[in-house]
Amino acid sequence: MSPFFTSRWVTPPGQVTQLGEDGDAGLPAGFRAAGVPARIKPSGAPDVALIACDSLAVSSHAMFTRSGTQSAPVLVCRERCELHRIAAVVVNSGNANAATGGPGYDDALRMQELAATATGVHPSRVAVASTGVIGVPLPMERVTSGIAAAGRVLAADGDRTFSDAIRTTDAFEKRARVQVTLPSGTVTVTAQAKGAGMISPGFATLLCFVQTDAAMSAQTCELLLSVCVKRSFDRISVDGQLSTSDTVILQASGASGVTVAPESEDELRLGEAIDAVMRQLALLVVADGEGARRTGRVVVHGGEERIVARVARSVANSPLVKAALYGGDPNWGRIVQAVGAAMPHVAPLALDVSIEGVQVCSAGAFVPHDEPALAAAVAGDEVQYEIGLPGEGAEAEVYFSDLGHEYVTINAEYTT
Amino acid sequence: MSPFFTSRWVTPPGQVTQLGEDGDAGLPAGFRAAGVPARIKPSGAPDVALIACDSLAVSSHAMFTRSGTQSAPVLVCRERCELHRIAAVVVNSGNANAATGGPGYDDALRMQELAATATGVHPSRVAVASTGVIGVPLPMERVTSGIAAAGRVLAADGDRTFSDAIRTTDAFEKRARVQVTLPSGTVTVTAQAKGAGMISPGFATLLCFVQTDAAMSAQTCELLLSVCVKRSFDRISVDGQLSTSDTVILQASGASGVTVAPESEDELRLGEAIDAVMRQLALLVVADGEGARRTGRVVVHGGEERIVARVARSVANSPLVKAALYGGDPNWGRIVQAVGAAMPHVAPLALDVSIEGVQVCSAGAFVPHDEPALAAAVAGDEVQYEIGLPGEGAEAEVYFSDLGHEYVTINAEYTT
Repeated sequence: MSPFFTSRWVTPPGQVTQLGEDGDAGLPAGFRAAGVPARIKPSGAPDVALIACDSLAVSSHAMFTRSGTQSAPVLVCRERCELHRIAAVVVNSGNANAATGGPGYDDALRMQELAATATGVHPSRVAVASTGVIGVPLPMERVTSGIAAAGRVLAADGDRTFSDAIRTTDAFEKRARVQVTLPSGTVTVTAQAKGAGMISPGFATLLCFVQTDAAMSAQTCELLLSVCVKRSFDRISVDGQLSTSDTVILQASGASGVTVAPESEDELRLGEAIDAVMRQLALLVVADGEGARRTGRVVVHGGEERIVARVARSVANSPLVKAALYGGDPNWGRIVQAVGAAMPHVAPLALDVSIEGVQVCSAGAFVPHDEPALAAAVAGDEVQYEIGLPGEGAEAEVYFSDLGHEYVTINAEYTT
Repeated sequence: MSPFFTSRWVTPPGQVTQLGEDGDAGLPAGFRAAGVPARIKPSGAPDVALIACDSLAVSSHAMFTRSGTQSAPVLVCRERCELHRIAAVVVNSGNANAATGGPGYDDALRMQELAATATGVHPSRVAVASTGVIGVPLPMERVTSGIAAAGRVLAADGDRTFSDAIRTTDAFEKRARVQVTLPSGTVTVTAQAKGAGMISPGFATLLCFVQTDAAMSAQTCELLLSVCVKRSFDRISVDGQLSTSDTVILQASGASGVTVAPESEDELRLGEAIDAVMRQLALLVVADGEGARRTGRVVVHGGEERIVARVARSVANSPLVKAALYGGDPNWGRIVQAVGAAMPHVAPLALDVSIEGVQVCSAGAFVPHDEPALAAAVAGDEVQYEIGLPGEGAEAEVYFSDLGHEYVTINAEYTT
C-alpha cells in the first residue's frame, strides 16, 4: 500500500489508520460526491464537483481567504450561507469567478440554487467555491448542465471524481481517507484538497474539503477546523501570495453514531487525526508543481510570538532563500538577510542558524562547519532550517516550496 | 552624447545639465577618489574604493538599511562615525562583512583607521561600506594594501574607477555627473551607485554616494538626502528583500563658494536636481541584471496614505506580477490578487485598474477592452500600472523589476 503520510514532518498518531490503497475511494457514511466535465476548462478535464450530506443532523464550519478582493463565491458563502450546517458544496475549476462584479455574484448565487436543486436541500445550506482564471465571466450554461449532471451521479465513492474536478494545475491528487479509533468508537475522515504550489497560473488557490461521520456540534467543527488550519494551511508559503478564493470546509454527518463531545478525549483524538491529515495535505500542496524539487521547513525560536511568526514568514517567502533551496545551495547568508529584513532596527542581533542540524551561525557570527557535509544535507527532498532569536518560550514554523525555472516559465508565459 | 536621463518617468528639471559624454569622469571641486583591485574578488576586478573631501568645511548626511542584521561597517558608521561631517568614504566589494560578529566589527574599524591614514583625516570622519558575500571574514591583508594603494592614486577624475570598484554583479555602470544652475551660482553634483536588481547573488545591496561642491549645512544635507531617498531608493522593489548593507551618503564640500541656505530657492532647485539624479539611478538599479527585460511602475491612488503605500508595495513585490511583466503578459488578475492580499477583510472592494492607460477593471469588475492593443502596450521596456482605491488624496508609486529565468539560474546556482 502506498502510504499517505510521506513527510518526515508529520507523524500520524496511533489512532489513525489509512484506509485502502492509493486510488481507492469511499466517503464516510452519510456523504455522496461526484465530479464531471462541463467544458469550462478548454482541456475537457472534469471541472464541476458536488458533495452532499444526506444526514439532516450535519454540522459544519468553513474558513475563507482574508483577501480584500474575495471572489464572488466566497462572498456568497459569507453572506448567504448557513456555515454551521452546510449540507452540500458545489465547486467549479477553470474559472475563479473573481473580479466579476454584480453579475459574478449573481452567477455564484445561481450555482448555489442549482446545487440545492440537485441535492434536495435549501440554497442557504449550499457552499460555493470556484478556482481558475480571474476576471472572466463564468460560462453559466456549461456550469448549469455540469451541476445537473453531477447531481445525477452522486455516489458514496465519488470522492475520487470530486477530487479530480477541483484540480487546476495540480500535478498530483491530494486526497486522504483514514479511520480513527476514538474512545467512543470508530469514525472515518476523508479530505480532498487542491493547490499547486508556486506554479499555478491562476494563483496558488487552496481548496480543502474534509468529511467525517462523527457526530459533533458546529462549535466543535469550528474549534477543530480553526486549530488544524492554523497548524497546516496557515503555515505554508508558496509564493507569499494570497488568493481571492481560498476555502476550507469541514462537514460532520453524525452517521457513525459516535458522538464527539466538547472537551472530551474523543475530541482530542479526532483533532489529532484531522491535524495529521491536514498537515500532510498542506505539505503536498507545497511539494506540488512541475519542477518543484524541494520542500523547506523553517522553525524559529525566541521570546516573542509576534516576532518569531514574522521571521518564519520572511524566511519562507524570501525568493533568495527559495532559489537557494531549489539549487541545493546551503546559502545561509540569505537566512541572515531574511531575518534582518523582518526585524528592523534591532542590530546587532544575536542570531543562531542551523541547517539540517549543522550550526552555521552563532550569536550573529559564522561558525566554521563541515561544508561538504552541509551541501550533501541540503540536496534531499526536505530541508530544515532552525533559527534562534534572543529570548525563549515562543516558536513558529512555516513550510515552503522552492523557486525554480518552471515557476518563471509558467507564470511568464501563461496568457490570460 | 548618450543621455543619462533615459526613463520616461524622470524629467530632469531645467536647471540641470548633464556634464560630458558617457564615460567621462570628474568630481565636484574639493573631492578626489580612486578604485583599485585588491584581490578580494576572485575575478581580479577592482574591489577597494576610496573617496576623500579635501575641504575642512565638508558637511554630510548618511542613511542605512533598516535591517536587524546590519553588516559590521553599517554598525561602525552608526556607532563610530560623525555622520554630519564625513570627509572620506572607504568601500570594498566582494565581501559584505556581515554575520561576522566581533572580529568583523574590528575589521570594519580597522578599515576606518586605514582610510583615515590614507586620506589624512580623523577616523571618526571616515564612513565604511562593504558589499558582497555574507558570513565570510574579510581578507584583511588584501584590504589593507588595497586601501593604501587607493590612497596613493586619489584623483579629481577618480569617480570612474571608484564606481568600478563598488560594483558586484552590476551589468552596467550607474554614475551621474550634472551641473546645476542655482539662483546664487552654478554647482556640480556627481553620484555613483551600485545595485543589480533581482539577480545579485550577494543580495540586491544598494550603495549610493553623492557629492556636490555646494556649501550647505549638515541639516540641509539631511533634509535633501532624506526627501530624495524617499522618492527614489525607497520606492523600488527588486525582490522585496532588504539587504544587510544598504548605504547612501551625501557629501557637500562647499568648494564652489555657492551657499545653499535653508528654505531658499537654491535649496529647492538643488533638491530637484538631486531628486532627478537619484530617481534615475534607482531606475537603473531596477533595470539592471542579466535578463531583466522590463521595468514596471505602479501608481496607487486612494484615501489613506498607509493603505496606498502598502498596496503599491504588494503589487511591486508580487512574484506573479513580476513574472507576468517578464513575459509581457497583461495578466491584470494578478494585480487584483496582489491588491486583495494587501487589504485583508475589506471585500467587496471597488477597485479600478489601468495598464498603460487601458482600463481593465472598474469598481472591482472586469471592463471589456482591446486585448491585442493591451498586449502590445505591455511589450515595451517600461510598463505602467495604475490602481484606484476608494477615497482620494493619497498616492504612492513603486518601481519594480521583472522576474525571469536568470534570477533563478544565478540565485539557485550561486555557491557560497
